[in-house]
Amino acid sequence: MRNPQLNEKGELQHLLTIEGLPRETLTHILDTATSFVGVTAREVKKVPLLRGKSVFNLFFENSTRTRTTFEIAAKRLSADVINLNIAISSHTKGETLLDTVDNLSAMHADMFVVRHAQSGAPHLIASHVASHLHVVNAGDGRHAHPTQGLLDLYTIRHFKKDFTRLSVAIVGDVLHSRVARSLIHALTIMGTPDIRVIGPMTLIPSGVEKLGVTVYHDLEKGLRDVDVVVMLRLQSERMRGALLPSAQEFFKYYGLTPEKLALAKPDAIVMHPGPLNRGVEIDSAVADGAHAVILSQVTFGIAVRMAVMSILAGN
Amino acid sequence: MRNPQLNEKGELQHLLTIEGLPRETLTHILDTATSFVGVTAREVKKVPLLRGKSVFNLFFENSTRTRTTFEIAAKRLSADVINLNIAISSHTKGETLLDTVDNLSAMHADMFVVRHAQSGAPHLIASHVASHLHVVNAGDGRHAHPTQGLLDLYTIRHFKKDFTRLSVAIVGDVLHSRVARSLIHALTIMGTPDIRVIGPMTLIPSGVEKLGVTVYHDLEKGLRDVDVVVMLRLQSERMRGALLPSAQEFFKYYGLTPEKLALAKPDAIVMHPGPLNRGVEIDSAVADGAHAVILSQVTFGIAVRMAVMSILAGN
Amino acid sequence: MRNPQLNEKGELQHLLTIEGLPRETLTHILDTATSFVGVTAREVKKVPLLRGKSVFNLFFENSTRTRTTFEIAAKRLSADVINLNIAISSHTKGETLLDTVDNLSAMHADMFVVRHAQSGAPHLIASHVASHLHVVNAGDGRHAHPTQGLLDLYTIRHFKKDFTRLSVAIVGDVLHSRVARSLIHALTIMGTPDIRVIGPMTLIPSGVEKLGVTVYHDLEKGLRDVDVVVMLRLQSERMRGALLPSAQEFFKYYGLTPEKLALAKPDAIVMHPGPLNRGVEIDSAVADGAHAVILSQVTFGIAVRMAVMSILAGN
Repeated sequence: MRNPQLNEKGELQHLLTIEGLPRETLTHILDTATSFVGVTAREVKKVPLLRGKSVFNLFFENSTRTRTTFEIAAKRLSADVINLNIAISSHTKGETLLDTVDNLSAMHADMFVVRHAQSGAPHLIASHVASHLHVVNAGDGRHAHPTQGLLDLYTIRHFKKDFTRLSVAIVGDVLHSRVARSLIHALTIMGTPDIRVIGPMTLIPSGVEKLGVTVYHDLEKGLRDVDVVVMLRLQSERMRGALLPSAQEFFKYYGLTPEKLALAKPDAIVMHPGPLNRGVEIDSAVADGAHAVILSQVTFGIAVRMAVMSILAGN
Repeated sequence: MRNPQLNEKGELQHLLTIEGLPRETLTHILDTATSFVGVTAREVKKVPLLRGKSVFNLFFENSTRTRTTFEIAAKRLSADVINLNIAISSHTKGETLLDTVDNLSAMHADMFVVRHAQSGAPHLIASHVASHLHVVNAGDGRHAHPTQGLLDLYTIRHFKKDFTRLSVAIVGDVLHSRVARSLIHALTIMGTPDIRVIGPMTLIPSGVEKLGVTVYHDLEKGLRDVDVVVMLRLQSERMRGALLPSAQEFFKYYGLTPEKLALAKPDAIVMHPGPLNRGVEIDSAVADGAHAVILSQVTFGIAVRMAVMSILAGN
Repeated sequence: MRNPQLNEKGELQHLLTIEGLPRETLTHILDTATSFVGVTAREVKKVPLLRGKSVFNLFFENSTRTRTTFEIAAKRLSADVINLNIAISSHTKGETLLDTVDNLSAMHADMFVVRHAQSGAPHLIASHVASHLHVVNAGDGRHAHPTQGLLDLYTIRHFKKDFTRLSVAIVGDVLHSRVARSLIHALTIMGTPDIRVIGPMTLIPSGVEKLGVTVYHDLEKGLRDVDVVVMLRLQSERMRGALLPSAQEFFKYYGLTPEKLALAKPDAIVMHPGPLNRGVEIDSAVADGAHAVILSQVTFGIAVRMAVMSILAGN
């Protein structure tokens, strides 16, 4: 069975999940992104690659931050961008997801950037649309957030060059994190030998070892000699639930402080998908410190999204 | 008394309602739209006709779907588009409708696309603004929705060529439908000899025969040998009220099924303004079947709106 | 201590408040705006000065009207504009103001237009961002609204030429008005000899005389022989509170009627920042009369904002 993200020539048709993508595809995206990092630093931050194309930001789940990154990326590629917050739209009139998509496709959409609370919604859309249309998953349920995974990968490559000698620790609420899942797939494909997930038992999915990672419940043991620390955002909803005693308690055991970070390699980098919960999963001294590359992730994120969109539009 | 939509040369100044427009004006819009159907199918879906013009989507009533069609049309004409959802804006600060319009006019607006729950609001605005400004009615109360009427007309002409030999059935909630009203006017102007409205007594406006249509309460009788079936959307509000027993009951008598559609001509087309209520006014087998041209309506709708905007801006 | 709005060459780096700006800076903005008044009246209302620049409308307090003026100004300068209504955004996820700003800066923003309910928020942002970034205050708390002050200044100069011979009356809720405060600073810098504030004791800030203005509690006395009357908007919240007996009462004593306006100079102009409360602070006969230049203010407001943005981007 063919990967539904690739066309018959093996080119990227949709970006739904990093899982199952060939290493060359990931490398091609990262290499293309490199050229766009230059564009975004220029005086005139615009290239005409998507001129006259219509990109629809189809957000069934609100996320101003993520929507903004795709909106900027598309505008810098000169696309026409239409933002649709579907929660307050025709869905309330009882239209089905696929009727909405058919409708927008009939307006000659070229690309859908889809965010949905339900895992699999972008796949459903991708399997339904005509072959000249492209779907980018901007986060679906707990499943995947591939552009986040790619920007994490870009950041790691930028600072650490070679994936095949790295130790990477992913810390916190792995259970609910599509960021973690996407990054684990990405790192595995790139040949990273040592991927660790660190968190309390209630926040580590059972069977996660099958993805090729090592589980630690002790942060200090898990951080020892790693090159990269990826802190996950702790959703405040979790803290109210039964999974965690309190934010203070969580910070005590799993919050990243300068002392704990000192256990990692001296040149380790610290990443975080944002927005930060200072004093919950990360101490401000670390977030604003010399090891943090959190804002570089944001910068690279725009370039990576420009790369994905321009590659898809070209295929 | 001059038609308030036409300037002193008889050219279209505003598009407020199809009622009273000359047949040549409608034909000119449809012919212009034909050229834009080509544009929207191109690689670069953009023409510079409205470059540097400011189009304001002035939505006093929320409708993401309709707003999106005008936004896309304006962007493909290279206009600058400003979306204003006025329900949550200065209206809440007690400003009058005309003060809002004066204010935006003073910002050198070129065109207002107006949606309002009150019938006549776009007319009021059109009668108030300076002569270089253009108003497009995007739906006012139960009164008119002229671009919908025009896209319906375009669709019928595309598939059936000659209006003067057609039988057209409009089915469902005619009472509350500005779509029905706009289409009846359009078809009459184009010389359609047989226009039928079909629905339960509670949903057919009394005196509708004066518009030159024939009323049927029996769907099977009404559909016999028609060339075109236009299904209207049943607002769910109606079903909760006293006008209808239930959605199931409505579907039983007035829902379009393949069996009922078989009573129409073999090459009949089925239209619907969207969004669909599958299983209420239309069966999925019909909505997704070979007779349905519902998505073509959407495509033509963009071209028709581009035509209207570019004609107005040129006059 | 250097003015935080100016760079080391004394050029405008941010526009946060009119207070403390050199007269030449204000004159330069007004002169630049003059050239943009021409642009906005053209067929193609667009210049490429901000092409490829990313302007973020960062509205922590909702104001469709003000946001629209900045959006239009930026689009007419060919910038890419991103609207962020932060009340409903990541702030609800507990991110700090400066983390939000850092995040957007990392996306290579060029300019932030900031509206915030808290006085000083734009200053905080300006003091935090990198030196290639520019901040425009679009209204912060009761503190400042400098582009409104500048457009008022532009309007007065347009109609009255010479500030050094003028009498200007500012009428109404001076206490809560950042519009009044910004205009008083602007007029003072330009050398206006006679600035009067008129209102009930409860709506005049104590110590306002230190700004160089004369306080009147009697409208008829205060209006005598003035060249310019600036009516302030009365927030309806005030009327509900203890500060005012009722809107009717306020209008009786402080509403501008043709009779009261007759006390001013025969060629006096009447200004208002909008939106109007007709029959509260201003009579319709005045608002729509020959002395009113309220809509000219709006037109000049776009040109002034284009001037501010292009000057900042050029420095």
